[in-house]
Amino acid sequence: MFSIGLDYGSDSARAVIVDTKNGQVVGTAVAAYPRWAEGKYCEPTAQQFRQHPQDYIDVLIETVSNALKQAPAGAAEQICGIGIDTTGSTPVAVTEDGTPLGLTPAFTENPNALFVLWKDHTAHAESDRINELAHNGTYTDYTAYSGGIHSPEWFWAKAAHILNTDSAVREATFSFVEHCDWLPAVLCGNTNPLTIKLSRCTSGHKALWHSDWDGAPSDAFLTDVCPHLAGMRNRMSQETHTSDTPAGTLCETWAQQLGLPIGIPVCVGMLDAHMGAVGASAQAGSWCKVIGTSTCDMVVAEGQPDIIPGICGQVDGSIIPDAVGLEAGQAAFGDIFAWFQTLLSWGCSDRERQSALLGKLSQAAEKLPIGAHGVAAVDWFNGRRSPDVDPSARGALSGLQLGSDAPAVFRALVESAAFGSRAIQERFAAHGVHSNRIIALGGIAQKSPFIMQILADVLRCQIAVSDSDQTCALGAAMFAAVASKQQDNLQAAQEQMGAGIAANYYPQEENSQQYDVLYQHYCR
Amino acid sequence: MFSIGLDYGSDSARAVIVDTKNGQVVGTAVAAYPRWAEGKYCEPTAQQFRQHPQDYIDVLIETVSNALKQAPAGAAEQICGIGIDTTGSTPVAVTEDGTPLGLTPAFTENPNALFVLWKDHTAHAESDRINELAHNGTYTDYTAYSGGIHSPEWFWAKAAHILNTDSAVREATFSFVEHCDWLPAVLCGNTNPLTIKLSRCTSGHKALWHSDWDGAPSDAFLTDVCPHLAGMRNRMSQETHTSDTPAGTLCETWAQQLGLPIGIPVCVGMLDAHMGAVGASAQAGSWCKVIGTSTCDMVVAEGQPDIIPGICGQVDGSIIPDAVGLEAGQAAFGDIFAWFQTLLSWGCSDRERQSALLGKLSQAAEKLPIGAHGVAAVDWFNGRRSPDVDPSARGALSGLQLGSDAPAVFRALVESAAFGSRAIQERFAAHGVHSNRIIALGGIAQKSPFIMQILADVLRCQIAVSDSDQTCALGAAMFAAVASKQQDNLQAAQEQMGAGIAANYYPQEENSQQYDVLYQHYCR
Repeated sequence: MFSIGLDYGSDSARAVIVDTKNGQVVGTAVAAYPRWAEGKYCEPTAQQFRQHPQDYIDVLIETVSNALKQAPAGAAEQICGIGIDTTGSTPVAVTEDGTPLGLTPAFTENPNALFVLWKDHTAHAESDRINELAHNGTYTDYTAYSGGIHSPEWFWAKAAHILNTDSAVREATFSFVEHCDWLPAVLCGNTNPLTIKLSRCTSGHKALWHSDWDGAPSDAFLTDVCPHLAGMRNRMSQETHTSDTPAGTLCETWAQQLGLPIGIPVCVGMLDAHMGAVGASAQAGSWCKVIGTSTCDMVVAEGQPDIIPGICGQVDGSIIPDAVGLEAGQAAFGDIFAWFQTLLSWGCSDRERQSALLGKLSQAAEKLPIGAHGVAAVDWFNGRRSPDVDPSARGALSGLQLGSDAPAVFRALVESAAFGSRAIQERFAAHGVHSNRIIALGGIAQKSPFIMQILADVLRCQIAVSDSDQTCALGAAMFAAVASKQQDNLQAAQEQMGAGIAANYYPQEENSQQYDVLYQHYCR
Repeated sequence: MFSIGLDYGSDSARAVIVDTKNGQVVGTAVAAYPRWAEGKYCEPTAQQFRQHPQDYIDVLIETVSNALKQAPAGAAEQICGIGIDTTGSTPVAVTEDGTPLGLTPAFTENPNALFVLWKDHTAHAESDRINELAHNGTYTDYTAYSGGIHSPEWFWAKAAHILNTDSAVREATFSFVEHCDWLPAVLCGNTNPLTIKLSRCTSGHKALWHSDWDGAPSDAFLTDVCPHLAGMRNRMSQETHTSDTPAGTLCETWAQQLGLPIGIPVCVGMLDAHMGAVGASAQAGSWCKVIGTSTCDMVVAEGQPDIIPGICGQVDGSIIPDAVGLEAGQAAFGDIFAWFQTLLSWGCSDRERQSALLGKLSQAAEKLPIGAHGVAAVDWFNGRRSPDVDPSARGALSGLQLGSDAPAVFRALVESAAFGSRAIQERFAAHGVHSNRIIALGGIAQKSPFIMQILADVLRCQIAVSDSDQTCALGAAMFAAVASKQQDNLQAAQEQMGAGIAANYYPQEENSQQYDVLYQHYCR
């Protein structure tokens, strides 16, 4: 039997077809969102990023169809379930039957009727209001499990912002639904906002959902945030689940459309990064670190952790069912090195130099002593996310001398990014959450042994780099295997279907001791 | 009538022949030191820089001869005097008759028998010892008029170092003489160390000479610094003069050698930077700023200033006779921009880009708002010289974001260099020394309107850029005109022979107000 994993990223979606016995990928296809690729509905200077629901539908059909073409003959009939992850918080205003307004004739071209992509930053004022009300003592601190803040990137800020800024959309809006909740509901043929099965992961990390307050924040609180949110809580489902639970079964319409069996389970959705941790076989005690332009740090706690301030959130079941998943992140990691590459390329038309620059800098920097001859950096080039979010924080370089060359500055930038990771590690450790092993994902993890060794030394921790570049889709396929009872549980699925390890990095004590000293400087 | 100005720089010497009525330059010639150009006697990695006395003699003959060839026929007979400036502290060990050991057969190839160039840094241990003894309460604080320190670049540290490290040289040494004292004495035919007329400027700024303690530090102090200095004070002249005083008259041997009249006055020597201030018409209240790779800041005080801590020195008559000359400096200025140019050129073979880079960065940075979008810098890339010397201070960049581009960083570097100038200005001002006008010299002053305007705005002061690139030699020729009574006094010579102004920069109040705010950040 085979399961399908669907992974909806920022720019494109991927479908994989996986053998549920051994995790072998027998078909895979990627498709870019067509309207998004044209730059439609976005205003980058205003940090407005919207995606059309039709984009999601179009690539669903395209990727599943193309992945099936690669699979063995007859594979379509042996598909036993579908798992889904998406970006988030990526909510959309919907009608009473759960149809995104952008799919209704009056609103097809209105950006406010479309999905508000995770990185949209238009809801600053609304997030400020939420944080103020959560902390001024009038209400419960609904941000307690979200690191003490509700970001402008998150659900309630975005919902309030849409209602505040577009009266036509406001009047047509019944409720809001997250991308990762809507898509499974579509496949199951019932998108009713009142009964939809919500993702525990997305609700908990992005929408202030918690069992302590029976789901979403109180109606009084939400009405105080934005009068237009009055009654909204009652127009949304409060039922959340982990992704081993079926959201429902594949409806006839979509079974025909996709050429798949009717009635197979479609799993409750999940955030893409967290699903990647599942696909990379994260278990209790694992720290899964997605290292790309920024980092997403997901730790699966052993036991019940304290409330940890200054991280991005902690949600029971957000990664592995029955374990608390903690999320943190660095707002810039690879982006820092890209900044330096861009700086050195200013006014330079030599594209060959530019593309080889980071590789050559790494080679040269690797030969330098730890501490880069006294040059040091602070990694907050994109503000600070964790620990203790501060968007106004800035990057810095110090210890510069006339002889400080590009490799020395580059090494300092790499070390500072690793120190940023350590600051997250120490925040977790201060509250009793320790990780015995790091699983690294993402482009930098796979491409830069130089950076990964520094990270292992700084964190004093083994780092295993996953050898799969589609762990998100693989994790979704694992949950589908569990939901369709081809695997007994997630751990069994991970053991039999999980991705392998491409490389291991081990901390070197002599280096770690030197970094311990430099880290103390970094903290000051 | 014509006077000759001789300017001995770090790499070459220049002779100018100047009409004493109007300052017109009728002949000029430059010659590089031949042995120095070959890199002889130096060990750059050990920061050992030595110059052979024969180099100084060779270029003397070459430059005067070539300059005379350019001058009108009969000019040689109308030469009325010679003025001289050199680098310093650049001392040499001499025999009883004042001959540098390097000119005696046994020592012609021994670096320790040669002039120890100003930038030689081999005497760290000796300067530490001097500073310790000057400050531990046992002796007078002989560094009081030198900003509280005696640098390894200065006279007594170097003399002690030579005696400490080379026993053969030590046994042959009778005394030590500065380059700018030795050369006039040579031309006058009497180099006796006991009777030589010393430069007030060099003795005061570089050799702890002060009238408060009747000249050099006490024999007890010097013996405590280095036992081999015992008695040295008595084997040196203690008579210092300003450069309007003749050191003597041109002797027959050198008159014949150079083709000049016998008996014309040869002025007491002076440091090159200070002589440049004279040539640029510095007067009481002037701040003369030589802006090149680093800066040399020379202020002529009005009246008698306090002792000012943390500058490089204050000496009565070191620039203008009968006025206190104060010296300070920034250890890096243009070198900071050269650092950035080198950083951006790493791994780039495009030489055209490299040579145009600073110009293009200036053009782009000029269009940015003041404060460079939040990027800020600290200018101590070569340690800090003034105020409050600290060789271990380092440069820094802060406020960096992913969008901070090369022009923004460049602008921040320029602003920080200007703030470094302001820190010097404020130190002077805190002790009652104010300047109503800045005279700027050096490559950056002449080449970069962008940088000069920022400097004027930050300092809230008019800046006049001298239009001569040979103000040092011109200043020496002015003193020669005074010593030979072709001019009544230095001020008259400056008025009639002085260089013009190439450009004026005026502070713009609106900009200055913004820089006031940023300067407060810089200070923190």
